[in-house]
Amino acid sequence: METDIQIAQGSSLKPIVEIAAALGLSEDAIEQYGPYKGKISYPTLMELKQKEAGKLVLVTAINPTPAGEGKSTVTIGLADSLNAAGHQTMIALREPSLGPVMGLKGGAAGGGYAQVLPMEDINLHFTGDMHALTSAHNTLSALIDNHIHQGNALDLDPSRIAWKRVLDINDRSLRQIVTGLGGPINGQPREDGFDITVASEMMAILCLARDLQDLQERLANILIGYNRADQPLFVKDLEVQGALTLLLKDALKPNLVQTIYGTPALVHGGPFANIAHGCNSVLATETALSLADITVTEAGFGADLGAEKFLDIKVPHLRKAPDAIVLVATIRALKMHGGISKADLAQEDLGTLEAGFANLSHHVNSLATTGRPVIVALNRFAGDSPAELTLLQELCQAAAIPVALTEVWEKGPQGGQELVKTLLPYLAEEKDFTPYYQVEDQFLTKLEKLAQKAYGAQGVDLAPKAAKQLNHFQNQGWDQLPICMAKTPYSLSDNPSLGGRPQNFRITIREFQLRHGAGFIVALAGNVLTMPGLPKEPAAFHMGLDADGQVFGLF
Amino acid sequence: METDIQIAQGSSLKPIVEIAAALGLSEDAIEQYGPYKGKISYPTLMELKQKEAGKLVLVTAINPTPAGEGKSTVTIGLADSLNAAGHQTMIALREPSLGPVMGLKGGAAGGGYAQVLPMEDINLHFTGDMHALTSAHNTLSALIDNHIHQGNALDLDPSRIAWKRVLDINDRSLRQIVTGLGGPINGQPREDGFDITVASEMMAILCLARDLQDLQERLANILIGYNRADQPLFVKDLEVQGALTLLLKDALKPNLVQTIYGTPALVHGGPFANIAHGCNSVLATETALSLADITVTEAGFGADLGAEKFLDIKVPHLRKAPDAIVLVATIRALKMHGGISKADLAQEDLGTLEAGFANLSHHVNSLATTGRPVIVALNRFAGDSPAELTLLQELCQAAAIPVALTEVWEKGPQGGQELVKTLLPYLAEEKDFTPYYQVEDQFLTKLEKLAQKAYGAQGVDLAPKAAKQLNHFQNQGWDQLPICMAKTPYSLSDNPSLGGRPQNFRITIREFQLRHGAGFIVALAGNVLTMPGLPKEPAAFHMGLDADGQVFGLF
Repeated sequence: METDIQIAQGSSLKPIVEIAAALGLSEDAIEQYGPYKGKISYPTLMELKQKEAGKLVLVTAINPTPAGEGKSTVTIGLADSLNAAGHQTMIALREPSLGPVMGLKGGAAGGGYAQVLPMEDINLHFTGDMHALTSAHNTLSALIDNHIHQGNALDLDPSRIAWKRVLDINDRSLRQIVTGLGGPINGQPREDGFDITVASEMMAILCLARDLQDLQERLANILIGYNRADQPLFVKDLEVQGALTLLLKDALKPNLVQTIYGTPALVHGGPFANIAHGCNSVLATETALSLADITVTEAGFGADLGAEKFLDIKVPHLRKAPDAIVLVATIRALKMHGGISKADLAQEDLGTLEAGFANLSHHVNSLATTGRPVIVALNRFAGDSPAELTLLQELCQAAAIPVALTEVWEKGPQGGQELVKTLLPYLAEEKDFTPYYQVEDQFLTKLEKLAQKAYGAQGVDLAPKAAKQLNHFQNQGWDQLPICMAKTPYSLSDNPSLGGRPQNFRITIREFQLRHGAGFIVALAGNVLTMPGLPKEPAAFHMGLDADGQVFGLF
Repeated sequence: METDIQIAQGSSLKPIVEIAAALGLSEDAIEQYGPYKGKISYPTLMELKQKEAGKLVLVTAINPTPAGEGKSTVTIGLADSLNAAGHQTMIALREPSLGPVMGLKGGAAGGGYAQVLPMEDINLHFTGDMHALTSAHNTLSALIDNHIHQGNALDLDPSRIAWKRVLDINDRSLRQIVTGLGGPINGQPREDGFDITVASEMMAILCLARDLQDLQERLANILIGYNRADQPLFVKDLEVQGALTLLLKDALKPNLVQTIYGTPALVHGGPFANIAHGCNSVLATETALSLADITVTEAGFGADLGAEKFLDIKVPHLRKAPDAIVLVATIRALKMHGGISKADLAQEDLGTLEAGFANLSHHVNSLATTGRPVIVALNRFAGDSPAELTLLQELCQAAAIPVALTEVWEKGPQGGQELVKTLLPYLAEEKDFTPYYQVEDQFLTKLEKLAQKAYGAQGVDLAPKAAKQLNHFQNQGWDQLPICMAKTPYSLSDNPSLGGRPQNFRITIREFQLRHGAGFIVALAGNVLTMPGLPKEPAAFHMGLDADGQVFGLF
C-alpha cells in the first residue's frame, strides 16, 4: 500500500499556468509561486465577480469521531469524479495550519487518490498566507503595547486588552504568559497569551472580505480593548489599518493548485471551526463559482458546527447558498456514535451501527430545514463489512435519504461515480433557501433557533457572565451580528462524551467574544483551546529530506 | 523630489525569467514568486558551483552615525554603474527584516535611483524566507518545551535552556516573558523571551550553509541547553533536524530580483550584524560569483564589525576573498565623527571634517592589513559644500587612499562612473589575502588580534563570567571556532559615544554565547538588544494602499 506522500510524489503535475489556461485565465492572471502554485491576480479576481455563478455543493459530515470521516478526501474525490464524468468542476478548500501538521496531523491535503498537490508545499509554507497573518496579527499586538509604552494617549486599560498574540505552531507553553518583564524599557508587565494563527480574528476577516477595501474596513473595526472609562477601542483608533492591509494584500488572493487528476482547486484561508467560521475564503468560493460549472467546497467539523456556520455566516457574503449538501459518513464513525469502542471498530456490529444512525439522520433533517437537498456520501473504509454497508444503505432508504457509496480514497474518480449520479439530479433543481435564523432576529432568538435546529437542543441558557456581556453588546448595538458557536465538535450537545443523538439537553453559553472586525459574536459553550499542544511523539519526529532531496513524513 | 517608492513605482521591470535568461538560466532554473521575483532552483544552485568564480567587491563603511552613510545605495549603484560601463555585474545583498520596516526604517532596498525592485515586496514578505525561519525556530522552541512536558527523557534543565523564541517584529514587550503559566496542562513555567528573527542562530546557519546537507548538520549541532548533569544537549539529541531542514528547504534558495536599471541581484538572508555575522548568504554570493564577471556585495554596520566578520567568518566558506573593498563615507558622517552635532550638520565645518577623517583612515589601514585594495566611495549628499568635498579628497590623496565621488542616489549609473574608473584597475591585480586572525590561533590570541587590528584597541579583557565560559568552551573543544564580536557599531571602541578614532582603549568581553550550529562564538562587548522596540511614531502609521491599490509609506 502506498502512503499519501508516495502517491503524491508519483503523480505528474501540470504547470499551474496550464491549469489556469483551461479555466480561461491568461498567464498574467496568475502570480506563480513555483511552477505548481499560483495566486490569482487581484484585478482578475475583481473582474470575475461579473461572471455568472455556477452550482455550489457543500460537503459536510456527521459529528467527527476518532475513527475519521475523510471529509476533505470526499470533497476532492467528488470534484475529480464530476470532472471525469464531463462536468467542469472546481474545488474550494481551506489551507492547512503548520502547527497541527508538525503535531498530530502530519498534513491536511486529502488522502489516497484524492489529494491536492503539491501536498508538500500545501502542508508547509504554501504561499505564505498563514505567515502573513501571523505578521499582521503580531504587528498589531506590538503596536498596542507600544501605544501604552509611549504615553497611552488612548488610555487603553492594560488589563482589558482584547487582542492576544499568535503563532502558527502548537505550543502549550505560550497559552498563558506574562510579557513586559525586565523593567520599564521593556514596557509594562501584563498577562497575555498566544493563540494559533488560524484562531486569529484576522484569519476570519481574510476569509470574509470581498475585496481590499472590505478587508481594510474589517481590520479597522477590530476591537482591541477598552479604555479606563469603559469605552471600546478599535484598530481605527490606533490608525494602523493601512499597514495591516498592506501586510495582508497578497494573502487575500486565493491560491490555485490542482488535484492528482488535474482538477483545479482554490486552497485558501483556514479559520478555526470553533471560535471562527471554519470555511475557506469568500473570495476563493466566489472565484470558483465564476470559473466553474460546479464548485465543491467543504466546512469544518460536523454539520452542526461547520455547515451551520457556512450557511449562516458565509452564505450572506456569497452570491448563492449551496445548491446541494453532501453529508459524509463512515460505518466506523457511526458505530462509534452507536457506542462501540475504538478498539472494537474492526468487528462487524450492526447494532451499534443502527444506534449511531441517529446522528446521521439528525444532521440530514437539520440541513433539510434550509430547503436544500442533502445527499449522504458513505465513505467506504477497508474494514467495512458487506452487511454493515447494506444496513446503512437500507436505513437511509427507509428514511428517504439519498445515499451513495464513495471509494475515492482507494480508486480516485472511478470511486465517486455513484455519488455523482446520485447528486447530479439535485443540482438541476431550484429551491428556496432558509438559514437557521434571521440575522435580524433578537439575539436570544437566534441562539435558540440555532441550538434547536442544528443541535436538537431544547434551548439555551446563559451563564451570568454571558448574560452580562449580552447586555453590554445590546447597549452597543452589536447584537445585530450573526452567531459563531464554539461548541465541542464531538457531540450535538455541549458534552463531548455524548455521541449519537443526545436527547433532552440544553446548551449553556459560558461567555461571548466579540469579533467586531470579522462581524460575528462567538458564543462559548464549553472550553475551547485556541492554542493546541504537541503530542508525546509529534509528527515532526518523522519528517525530513532523503538523500535525493525528496520530502518524507508528511501524510 | 520623488520619494524612493515613487521612483520604484515609476520604474518598469523586466519579467524575472528575462533577467535570468540574460544570466544563462533557463525558465526551469527559476521558481517564480510572481512575475518579478524568483528563487534559483536547488539543482541549478548545485550545478553552478562548478563554474569559475568572477571578481568580488565588498562594500563596507566607516562607523555609522545618525547622519546615514548609504552603503546599500552605493552597493546597488556601483553594480548598476559597472553594468552601464560594460562589465557584467551582479549584486548579493541581505534581505530586510519586517520589524524595522514597520518600526523606524520603513524599508531597506537601497534608495533614490539605486534600488532593488519590487521594493514593496522585498520590504514586506518577499519570498517568505524570514517567515520560514520564524516557523522553524519556534517549532524547535515548542519541541523543547514539549520534551520537558512529556517526561523530559533528556533531563533538560528548564533554567538552562539556550534557545529562545523569535518573531520578525519589533516588540519590546516580548523581550522578557514568563511562559507555561496556568497550571500543568500548559507546561512548566519558566523565564524566556523573544528575539527578532534575524537574530536567530538559524538565520546565521541559513546564511553559512553550502547545501541542504550542510544545513541539516548545522541545525543538528545547535546547542539547546544543558541537562542537570551539566552536559550540553543539541538538536540532534531531540532528533528533529529533519523537520527543521524541511521547514527551511525553500528559504535556502537565493532570491533573484533586479535593480531599477535591470542589474540582477540576489537578495538573500539577513543575519543580525552584532550577535551574528551580518552578510547575505554564502549560497547567494557563491551563485553570483558563478553567474557574473563581477559581484558587488555588502556587509553590515562599519568595517570594524561587518567587514571583519565577512572576512573572518564568511570568506572561509567562499571560493575567494574580496578582490577589492569599497569603503563608503559621507561628509556628514565624518563631521559627526569629528564632533559636530546632528543639528549643525548643514553648516560647512572643515575642522570637524578633518578631525573625523581619523575614523576613515583607521578603517582603510585596518582593511589594508588583509592585503586587498581599499577604495573610498565618497557618497555625496545634497548639503555637502564644495570646500568640504575638496578637503576630503585632499586628505585621502595625502594618505595615498584612492577615493571617488559617487552620486548614484541622485543620478543612478551615471553617478557611479568615477567610482568604476577608480575601482577597475584594482580588480585586475592578484594579491594574497590575510584574515584578521587565524582560526587555529589560541582563542585569546584571536580576540587580541581582532581588537588590535580592526578596532585599534590596545587589548582585550575578559570579565569573570566570560573567563569562566572560555574555560568551559576550551574543555569542550569549542574554542577552535571563529569569533563573532557583538560590539557597538557606533564606535571603534566598546563605548558608543566615542566617535572618530578613539585612542588608548581596551575592549572588555562581558560574556560569550556559543553558536554551535552556525559555527562561531559570539563575544559580547556591551549590551546588545536582540529584540528592538517600536518608536513613538512607527513607520507603520504612514503605510497603506491608496484607492488604486498602490502601496504607499515604504521608503
